[in-house]
Amino acid sequence: MLTPFRVDTNSLAITDRLNAIGCSVLSKAVVADDIEALARVLTAALESVDLVVCTGGLGPTADDITREAVARALGLPLDMDEAIVERIRGRFAGRGLTMPDINRRQAMVPRGAVVLENEHGTAPGLWLERGDAAIVLLPGPPREMTPMIEAVVAERLVPRARGARLFRRVMKIVGRTESDVDARVQPIYGRWPDRAVPINTTILAAPGQIELHLTASAPSRVDADRVLDAAVGEVQAELGSAVYSVDGRGLEAVVGDLLRAGGWTIAVAESCTGGLLASRLTDVPGSSAYVERGAVCYSNRAKVEWLGVPEALLAEHGAVSEPVARAMAEGIRRVAGTHVGVGVTGIAGPGGGTPEKPVGTVGIAVVTPDDARVRTLRFFGGREMVKFQATQAAMNMLRLMLVDDGATS
Amino acid sequence: MLTPFRVDTNSLAITDRLNAIGCSVLSKAVVADDIEALARVLTAALESVDLVVCTGGLGPTADDITREAVARALGLPLDMDEAIVERIRGRFAGRGLTMPDINRRQAMVPRGAVVLENEHGTAPGLWLERGDAAIVLLPGPPREMTPMIEAVVAERLVPRARGARLFRRVMKIVGRTESDVDARVQPIYGRWPDRAVPINTTILAAPGQIELHLTASAPSRVDADRVLDAAVGEVQAELGSAVYSVDGRGLEAVVGDLLRAGGWTIAVAESCTGGLLASRLTDVPGSSAYVERGAVCYSNRAKVEWLGVPEALLAEHGAVSEPVARAMAEGIRRVAGTHVGVGVTGIAGPGGGTPEKPVGTVGIAVVTPDDARVRTLRFFGGREMVKFQATQAAMNMLRLMLVDDGATS
Repeated sequence: MLTPFRVDTNSLAITDRLNAIGCSVLSKAVVADDIEALARVLTAALESVDLVVCTGGLGPTADDITREAVARALGLPLDMDEAIVERIRGRFAGRGLTMPDINRRQAMVPRGAVVLENEHGTAPGLWLERGDAAIVLLPGPPREMTPMIEAVVAERLVPRARGARLFRRVMKIVGRTESDVDARVQPIYGRWPDRAVPINTTILAAPGQIELHLTASAPSRVDADRVLDAAVGEVQAELGSAVYSVDGRGLEAVVGDLLRAGGWTIAVAESCTGGLLASRLTDVPGSSAYVERGAVCYSNRAKVEWLGVPEALLAEHGAVSEPVARAMAEGIRRVAGTHVGVGVTGIAGPGGGTPEKPVGTVGIAVVTPDDARVRTLRFFGGREMVKFQATQAAMNMLRLMLVDDGATS
Repeated sequence: MLTPFRVDTNSLAITDRLNAIGCSVLSKAVVADDIEALARVLTAALESVDLVVCTGGLGPTADDITREAVARALGLPLDMDEAIVERIRGRFAGRGLTMPDINRRQAMVPRGAVVLENEHGTAPGLWLERGDAAIVLLPGPPREMTPMIEAVVAERLVPRARGARLFRRVMKIVGRTESDVDARVQPIYGRWPDRAVPINTTILAAPGQIELHLTASAPSRVDADRVLDAAVGEVQAELGSAVYSVDGRGLEAVVGDLLRAGGWTIAVAESCTGGLLASRLTDVPGSSAYVERGAVCYSNRAKVEWLGVPEALLAEHGAVSEPVARAMAEGIRRVAGTHVGVGVTGIAGPGGGTPEKPVGTVGIAVVTPDDARVRTLRFFGGREMVKFQATQAAMNMLRLMLVDDGATS
């Protein structure tokens, strides 16, 4: 987990389970296989929290040092638990194997610990208490860890959990900068922590969108829903249609639902996004109901042949221009016979920029039966970032047109 | 980063850069936006390490508390740096905007800190020293952080680095399972740790490919290159053409280089992958030199109209079949006038499966001037996993044909 390649997914699953019973996670640490370093982190954590969950380091080999580090941090001796040895021996025997001696390490238990059964591996878990705080040791493999944290939560943590649980809403916002969103919303969310049911707010900026995470600490879901629904409403009133989702759906799913609700079909013509727009639209299960086709027209010849973009238009304005974006949208709509046509043409970089049309310049056109909109935007970042942001902007233009046109009403 | 949703990718990139100069990472921590908690973690870290790198929490809002926490941990006052204020004001002005007052927070500097320029955002980085140890503060967005850690490593850490450095090779393998790769390669890499210049090996399984990470600890690049080149050669001799990359390139870049070397052009016709194959091919800078166009033919009508797939073929074999995949590949090749045509048709799920053609069934055809290959594959996982694995398999079929055909010779 300290290499550049390993993403720590256990901590995400554990955080999710703990949050659900109202336990906030104050910090996470990944520590080398070093007894001193791990004992130091444990000692520091025990000064300020009620629960420490450790995963991994319970295997049989010399670099599995979690048991020793916990014993060191708590000043406890390690005892060999012969019942565990027998259980491990039984697991090996069940596969017709003899238990290697090295596996006896897995039966070492800090004195006073409760042994937690592991149905999917040889390493048992351990539960220790120190004053009001508890320490849980779980094996690292997710397949073994997941059912064990479920059991620990249900049998040991829920009875200890005091008071409020945490409930969350994720609001997704597109077409505005983080500081703009914060400037408008801070006066609203700044009042929430002082309310009877307090709400904490986090703003997360990702390429092409902003997320607002609202977390309420409440005794029940009913109480939480009431305050969170009201809070979401306050933000929506301020940001209007820039909020595209309050239920976790991505932009492609929101656009898909709008198309489906209106009984509309769509076809897209892409140059710089190279198929990413079609791919994102078709990431949504059931999208074949409204996505008719997509044209990835990297060459001008393809734009002329498939979309009927006039060569003169390409010559006069260049492939990256609003007239060409519009001709692409109209062309794909006509050819595919769909309600909606989208055209995207731009310079994804790193090469191909000019002073008038620098890298990141993208022309986007959306044509519906009642409306046509064309915009030129400029995105920052590398090639893949420009591609992603262009698809985000195209889907958002379409979303706003579908909402404005009342396609869903 | 303490929610169940956020994966910490910055620490992976930073670990990679630090390992490359021989600096091992002893621990990582993710801490809540809580000044006391963060100051406590910093204080504990400074007791045992030479370098602490913090990312994030340098934004303008009230929950950006890294500056305050570091000042607290080191017992330093925070000063307003008017030069930073002017730089931030200038960034806003460059976009025709007025700097909000709140951004002045980003100009607060613990006394004695060196300011590190951020070319891609408003938050400057900071460098502080405490005895022999250094503390680096970098902004959280990867686009801003990455060039800044590069600069810190080159200008500040390399001169401080001591002793052996770590060197790495990443071998990428496609078309084989993790256990198959491990069974074949374990007898080879099992001998490496005992050599004069030892090599550690990690196998990582990702959807659609396996990676083998070889790490040598050596006093110089020359020593490392010698043993790593030999080790890579041993694995290649065992796995043959299943190894598609030993230099970090992705499959789309490897295929692109082969096409470019042969002076070949390509066009693709996609059904179930919905544009993802075209998008991945065009993720490679300069791919417009060989990607002519792509057709995302979600409807049968598009397959008939654009690719000339006979309606009778669709009726007889169904859209997901080898004859249709082949007709799509031949059709797009003919229409686009390219050397290579690729056709992909399948059932991405979750709906649409049948007993004979379950979800995950994908037909892939690749046609070149000298050769044509068609395969039916079955992938597991959700819709996006099936799409990705299908693009991986299609690119690998093409790669093997390009290698076999000697297009590059």
